Amino acid sequence: MDVLQLIKKRRSVRKFKKKTVSKEVIDNILEAARWAPSGLNNQPWRFMVLEKERKDLLADYTHYSRIIKSADKLIAVFIDKKSSYNHEKDLMAIGACIQNMLLFIHAAGLGACWLGEILNKRKQIQKVLRIPENLELEAVLALGWPEAGIKKSKRKDLKKLIIK
Amino acid sequence: MDVLQLIKKRRSVRKFKKKTVSKEVIDNILEAARWAPSGLNNQPWRFMVLEKERKDLLADYTHYSRIIKSADKLIAVFIDKKSSYNHEKDLMAIGACIQNMLLFIHAAGLGACWLGEILNKRKQIQKVLRIPENLELEAVLALGWPEAGIKKSKRKDLKKLIIK
Repeated sequence: MDVLQLIKKRRSVRKFKKKTVSKEVIDNILEAARWAPSGLNNQPWRFMVLEKERKDLLADYTHYSRIIKSADKLIAVFIDKKSSYNHEKDLMAIGACIQNMLLFIHAAGLGACWLGEILNKRKQIQKVLRIPENLELEAVLALGWPEAGIKKSKRKDLKKLIIK
Repeated sequence: MDVLQLIKKRRSVRKFKKKTVSKEVIDNILEAARWAPSGLNNQPWRFMVLEKERKDLLADYTHYSRIIKSADKLIAVFIDKKSSYNHEKDLMAIGACIQNMLLFIHAAGLGACWLGEILNKRKQIQKVLRIPENLELEAVLALGWPEAGIKKSKRKDLKKLIIK
């Protein structure tokens, strides 16, 4: 496997087969997450794996309820504010941690969608899931075995991204 | 290559050989960066590659000047505030983008260190590099061919990271 090809071929998957993702695979996804870099190695990430009725509870808090209902599982990603020393750096570390999961998920033949819009209902979700106050929801990954073929995606030309 | 092993074996590298990283490799690192996911695919990342005297300018703005001087090149990563729609989500996207670079760098046999402390001098650095006001420095990667052997690193047990 070529890591650049893996990175370039990963796509958001929004529709999933009715097929279970095993506990072993979930453990490996979280293992990938756990080894992300963080400032001062503070590892601010915390995870909650949701399936079945608990998963579907979250469908009420997003315009993308179909993705949640179609997914086999969700991984909710939190920052533990007790571990924080700098919120900006923690958020970047969370992004690195999520990318580790997305790359592992793609390499394993699974698919995922990084849900961000759901954060608009952060407070309500934290209440319904009974999340302690030191944790703050930062993202939800919907995942499962992909239903459809690979979709195309676009990126800006590298020339437009480089500052001379 | 096993992506989980790649993720787990990546380490921060702080000392580098006096050996040039080719333009082709730098282009591939930025190609990996460019394909990260971002909210609404807004791709807020911008990059500046620094070498030689311009690289060494930054050594004055961090306690880790030795890493900067040892590195062959720096990649400064910015958010373009004109592309932003949500600063928290942009920071997570930047983290995903940086992790793509770090994984590619490691897979290519190179090494890198994600410098965060240097952000304490963000304003001064932006001034000395003459960065336009719409860009905000978020991280600096120091990179090159690694000098020393692989160091160990630790992570919290998965059990401590999972919320039931």
